[in-house]
Amino acid sequence: MRDFLPQDKLKREQLIATVIESYIARGFQQIETPVLEDLSRLTSGQGGDNEKLVFKVQKRGDEFTQALEQGAELADLGLRFDLTVPLTRFYASNHAKLPRVFKAIQTGPVFRAERPQKGRYRQFIQCDIDIIGDDSILAELELLSASLAALQAIGITDATIRVNHRELLRSNIESLGISSEDALAAMIIIDKLDKIGIEGVSAELAGKFGESVGNAAKSWLSKIDSQDIPALLKPIWDGLGERSNSLRFDPTLVRGMGYYTGSIFEIEHPGSGSSIGGGGRYDGMVGKWLGTDAPAVGISLGIERIVDLIPESSASQDAVVLILEPGTQAFAIGLQQELITTGKTVRLEQRPKNLKALLEQLADNGYREFAIVDKDVSDLAQLDFKQIG
Amino acid sequence: MRDFLPQDKLKREQLIATVIESYIARGFQQIETPVLEDLSRLTSGQGGDNEKLVFKVQKRGDEFTQALEQGAELADLGLRFDLTVPLTRFYASNHAKLPRVFKAIQTGPVFRAERPQKGRYRQFIQCDIDIIGDDSILAELELLSASLAALQAIGITDATIRVNHRELLRSNIESLGISSEDALAAMIIIDKLDKIGIEGVSAELAGKFGESVGNAAKSWLSKIDSQDIPALLKPIWDGLGERSNSLRFDPTLVRGMGYYTGSIFEIEHPGSGSSIGGGGRYDGMVGKWLGTDAPAVGISLGIERIVDLIPESSASQDAVVLILEPGTQAFAIGLQQELITTGKTVRLEQRPKNLKALLEQLADNGYREFAIVDKDVSDLAQLDFKQIG
Repeated sequence: MRDFLPQDKLKREQLIATVIESYIARGFQQIETPVLEDLSRLTSGQGGDNEKLVFKVQKRGDEFTQALEQGAELADLGLRFDLTVPLTRFYASNHAKLPRVFKAIQTGPVFRAERPQKGRYRQFIQCDIDIIGDDSILAELELLSASLAALQAIGITDATIRVNHRELLRSNIESLGISSEDALAAMIIIDKLDKIGIEGVSAELAGKFGESVGNAAKSWLSKIDSQDIPALLKPIWDGLGERSNSLRFDPTLVRGMGYYTGSIFEIEHPGSGSSIGGGGRYDGMVGKWLGTDAPAVGISLGIERIVDLIPESSASQDAVVLILEPGTQAFAIGLQQELITTGKTVRLEQRPKNLKALLEQLADNGYREFAIVDKDVSDLAQLDFKQIG
Repeated sequence: MRDFLPQDKLKREQLIATVIESYIARGFQQIETPVLEDLSRLTSGQGGDNEKLVFKVQKRGDEFTQALEQGAELADLGLRFDLTVPLTRFYASNHAKLPRVFKAIQTGPVFRAERPQKGRYRQFIQCDIDIIGDDSILAELELLSASLAALQAIGITDATIRVNHRELLRSNIESLGISSEDALAAMIIIDKLDKIGIEGVSAELAGKFGESVGNAAKSWLSKIDSQDIPALLKPIWDGLGERSNSLRFDPTLVRGMGYYTGSIFEIEHPGSGSSIGGGGRYDGMVGKWLGTDAPAVGISLGIERIVDLIPESSASQDAVVLILEPGTQAFAIGLQQELITTGKTVRLEQRPKNLKALLEQLADNGYREFAIVDKDVSDLAQLDFKQIG
């Protein structure tokens, strides 16, 4: 878990605000769910391996004492590991008050009790959009269009979205000679293509399902770059028009989560070693809490990775520092208020012994001009602004 | 703990964004600390009664098993109950990278394991500003000026800030004939003035410290409305100029927390039964982690209470709905993009059986105009926008 210093926090806040603004412009609506959820809901089998990484919160008071005496479960709440499980619970609780097609934005911290390692954090931000209640391809189009627009708004124009469909993947796996019961095991092997290549995947499949499967896989995988976009996915390319240049059909894309049922996406960027986002359609999951099924599709942006791709936010030209000589505090507080109404950011500092060191430090924090407030200054016009440095 | 539906979330986000913007304009800088802190830090005696309300997070894996076998503490982390303890820990960890006078903004969820009751939440937002490293009255002036400006920016112009000083309170208590060791017990009684009145407080003080103390208290409390602003606090009135009309000196103001050492504040509003914010100077607390003392003063706004004082945010005039006839999806996604660049918020909806019901629901969500996209529409100019309802 990390502290964010002012410059880092500013960059993250600006990035997230721009992404959200872009989503809101497309009719998505922000919601918020609690950081804590019932532990039983977080460990109900929807979250795959993440369920093993839940931070558990102890029962309180007598309940805790009793559970300890009885050797019962000591925890009743947990910190959410993603925003999708809480969203489906939220939708089940509140759907009567929501639009028929619900387009949700969620940003907030999620928690995973990972062992500390480079690039993995135990608390991190997710930024998700989801559409619940639309089983048509329009939902996919809206999500992809919104994601590309959000990335563009923060200055990322060279992202690629790999697209596949779970049904295509299943039928491709079957045509290799693998039975449908073994499809999931095969997917796990195919998912390693980036790391172990065509030879590695073919060899593993051969080892597990026989030589003929291995040969079929090698032949399939060597042709994937030249495959036409299949009919099932074609409407996505048609719908996005020239923005479909940012899409790439990848028949080997798997996406880890077991709950995906249709289209799946993974967002890549040349500046990042791993994906910067992803998602897919999960039509079966909302029904788990709601009772009746509701179609759903979502995309999550990986803020922690994206923030590294963006240059430092440049300093505001309108940030100024007033250096206060003794006895000018009351006057300076009024001056500050006046200057702010002209659109400036105004920091007050009492004159220190080492003015140069202070100004250098403030320059690092985005300030470019300063003025001294002494007893001779009686109004705004008398301030003599100088460049810092 | 609560879910926030879109309209509630929008109102809260707009409110918080306006407050933060107002603080940033005064040179305050946002930081962020993790939601989880070491349990030992959250239960070190700085947080008063709040320390009893910490949600404890269980140790993981072998550490948990061992602790259970040994009957040791099962938790190692806790959810923060305020933003002040994390701030002082943050400052101790990061002060070398921060400006000499550090002006911090923090907004985020805090957690208290209260029994469910009206108006109390187990997860709620705090919005704090603090100045660390300035022992002069300028810090108080900046905080009060910023708080009044933030409230004004969100439309609250009739708040009153009650001001007192812990030293004044102590000397007033001593002059009633109460020894300095008993001062804290006396403060707890005086803090009930709002609830039990002058008679009640005088009677309780008489019961605890004798008849003469009770009489002295009654005489003191009956004169408090006419007291002049004491010299110790006068610079605050002088510094704020005409904005000091929003201040009220209250010699009986106590503020619960034990860590306050100087000026204390409580923000009141006629529309709210309880305070909507408060704070004070806590010069001893940062030193607890840093080793050397650093002066500090802060004010927290109670977002949950303030949000109830603000009217619903009005609908944006620029939010429109496009109703899509079959076969227009691809075209509409492009239209949406074009309309957004003109500054509009554009929601796409497939034409439902009951268009009227859909439009009514969207009107509730802030949409005022709609246009039908059918196959005859070939560019933006052909859209025929109509008022909803």
